[in-house]
Amino acid sequence: MAYLNENYLKLQAGYLFPEVARRVREFCKLNPEAGKRLIRCGIGDVTEPLPREAIKAMKRAIDELGHRETFRGYGPEQGYEFLRSTIAQYDYRSRNIEITEDEIFVSDGSKCDCGYILDILGGQNKVAVPDPVYPVYVDTNVMAGHTGPVRKDGNYEGVNYLPCTDENNFVPEPPQEHVDLVYLCFPNNPTGAVASRAQLSQWVDYAHEQEALLIFDAAYEAYISDPEIPHSIFEIPGANECAIELRSFSKNGGFTGLRCGFTVLPKSVLARTGNDRRLPLHPLWQRRWSTKSNSVAYPVQRGAEALYSAEGRKQVRALIDHYMTNAKLLHAAAVDAGLEVFGGINAPYIWIKTPRGLTSWEMFDTMLRELNVVVTPGAGFGAQGEGYFRLSAFNNRDNAEEVARRLKTFRRS
Amino acid sequence: MAYLNENYLKLQAGYLFPEVARRVREFCKLNPEAGKRLIRCGIGDVTEPLPREAIKAMKRAIDELGHRETFRGYGPEQGYEFLRSTIAQYDYRSRNIEITEDEIFVSDGSKCDCGYILDILGGQNKVAVPDPVYPVYVDTNVMAGHTGPVRKDGNYEGVNYLPCTDENNFVPEPPQEHVDLVYLCFPNNPTGAVASRAQLSQWVDYAHEQEALLIFDAAYEAYISDPEIPHSIFEIPGANECAIELRSFSKNGGFTGLRCGFTVLPKSVLARTGNDRRLPLHPLWQRRWSTKSNSVAYPVQRGAEALYSAEGRKQVRALIDHYMTNAKLLHAAAVDAGLEVFGGINAPYIWIKTPRGLTSWEMFDTMLRELNVVVTPGAGFGAQGEGYFRLSAFNNRDNAEEVARRLKTFRRS
Repeated sequence: MAYLNENYLKLQAGYLFPEVARRVREFCKLNPEAGKRLIRCGIGDVTEPLPREAIKAMKRAIDELGHRETFRGYGPEQGYEFLRSTIAQYDYRSRNIEITEDEIFVSDGSKCDCGYILDILGGQNKVAVPDPVYPVYVDTNVMAGHTGPVRKDGNYEGVNYLPCTDENNFVPEPPQEHVDLVYLCFPNNPTGAVASRAQLSQWVDYAHEQEALLIFDAAYEAYISDPEIPHSIFEIPGANECAIELRSFSKNGGFTGLRCGFTVLPKSVLARTGNDRRLPLHPLWQRRWSTKSNSVAYPVQRGAEALYSAEGRKQVRALIDHYMTNAKLLHAAAVDAGLEVFGGINAPYIWIKTPRGLTSWEMFDTMLRELNVVVTPGAGFGAQGEGYFRLSAFNNRDNAEEVARRLKTFRRS
Repeated sequence: MAYLNENYLKLQAGYLFPEVARRVREFCKLNPEAGKRLIRCGIGDVTEPLPREAIKAMKRAIDELGHRETFRGYGPEQGYEFLRSTIAQYDYRSRNIEITEDEIFVSDGSKCDCGYILDILGGQNKVAVPDPVYPVYVDTNVMAGHTGPVRKDGNYEGVNYLPCTDENNFVPEPPQEHVDLVYLCFPNNPTGAVASRAQLSQWVDYAHEQEALLIFDAAYEAYISDPEIPHSIFEIPGANECAIELRSFSKNGGFTGLRCGFTVLPKSVLARTGNDRRLPLHPLWQRRWSTKSNSVAYPVQRGAEALYSAEGRKQVRALIDHYMTNAKLLHAAAVDAGLEVFGGINAPYIWIKTPRGLTSWEMFDTMLRELNVVVTPGAGFGAQGEGYFRLSAFNNRDNAEEVARRLKTFRRS
């Protein structure tokens, strides 16, 4: 009988969001009236319509596929040149970052890229992740056999967790010990923290000293309003020798249902074999895409390209402004309710300390029961997330305002 | 320094199609005039416009995403219920095959699924593949470390190759020895062969006796015209305990540039741990999708659904008929040219013996130089493909007719 991948058996029963969905379903079944009042501020999913420019571009692309003269079949496995060169120009060269279009690989989303990237990395790597953390970084490493079993607190043996607490403003410092691979995410999911240029430089220095590789998740870079905060790890000198960046169109263009993102893997990033041959990772990544994928739907790539047009950028800006206005409302309401509040300034996530020593799943249940608001329990993001919950600003204005109103009643309940 | 996945270093320099593309580019640079006459019968990419129903459905879906009331973000990770239930109904239950919608997982294509499926399987499996074979089955196993180094003939140590020759009509019999995992593809890429019910039953029997798992690639099932030939491995009794089926919308609906396919993983398929615990694979596959993906673009899923409507099915039928008329023309022309010809009856691929003892790359170069036609060299599909080349029927009619005309001149050249 075929063998299965036993690493999957180490995974905890519920991946965070399915477990949230299960509890919500159950609540609604038992409380149909309250269920009607339910507002979801849990999963970080966008709610607003797609930018008009993306819609126009996608419909045009679909029409092209309807005529033999303009039909396109398989596209280049790493993504169409029109999209990669647009990305290189607007996200990088216009910020004085030297990234060429063949260092960009278009994918069906950042979540997917988190898993794909492990395809080209060895099993021996010592991995460090922030705690709390986007669960996908950890779970994909569990699946790939890079960890031991799960511990009581939900974290895994063999992973180097970097505590992100109010003491370090949720930006971890490099560890004392050596690690090979470090995941960083700024603006952060779930804490909403951002890293300064100095903090990111510390990490790049660490990566050079320890010859570590940084996987930098910049899915939320569009939410940065502070001009001093870097949008890309490649704004830090030397990062193009030690970092891979993940980007997404999910949260700027609202593409969560369209599936498009990209990785930037500079040709100057090296990795090593067991006997210390040092080789660029770029050809391995290129090969991964050639062999295992045929890239992303052509209309979706045209939609992503349209986000960079003059009109498209305005429409993306308007989307970001919408969600960040929600963030302001929610942030203020949570402060008003006497809660201890973090994030929400350069990020669409607000990270809130649970009151009265509640665990984060208790707080989840309380918010569900008393305010009929779905939040995300911090413990779902790692042991250090215990005692926190995440409020997402991804909502329409009416909902955000209503959640803000309900939050204000929270102190009294 | 981070370790890389050394298995990638075992891969041969050129994945087949990039190498074909490289030779074509070089030829066109040196022979710009001949380059203008070039007709591609190499890569199996469709050429005809998308079915109107798919276009209408996708544009409607994109319009939905343009309004808050009908906007959708993240969809279910295993694909929308509307698509999975349509698939279960039309591809399976209407053929008296008991497959439920939650045994269907929508993906961004069959090529991708070939790689993904190895995520949930163990590294200890003994793997058998047909030879010649779609290179992705082998290369994804190389990448996952399931093989030894490459041999001189281009095949890999540690893989059990099942020779497909004119003697067995390109349908391999089960091996004498035990293997854990067998890839089968019917209608076959590259040989165009199909397997009868009796032949598939032999494989299902083998899988039961040896407790092996069959990965059945049915990407070309729509091209079957003979009513006796099974479209699905699940038409064979007992297959739902030992088989996973891969399907694609690339070749029926012309979705190569839209990226949509699916796997069918029955809940009754078990696999084992190292200490012989037997567990269903279904929850692992479900978990793989929850953790590593957010499914496929909503408009593309609506497009795929539309292929099953009454109108959509007619339009798909017309596409298949178009390509199969090409196949007939090319098949007849190759026979006329005195070549030994296989396939092309229930499949869009024609598999042709090279004349005069030419190697398949020599034949590739000859066809390129003398007929200005791009074919696929058989050796690119495995050692047993040496001495053959593949002609694809995916073309517009003018091109197919022109290639047929040129082929007829081949005997004299």
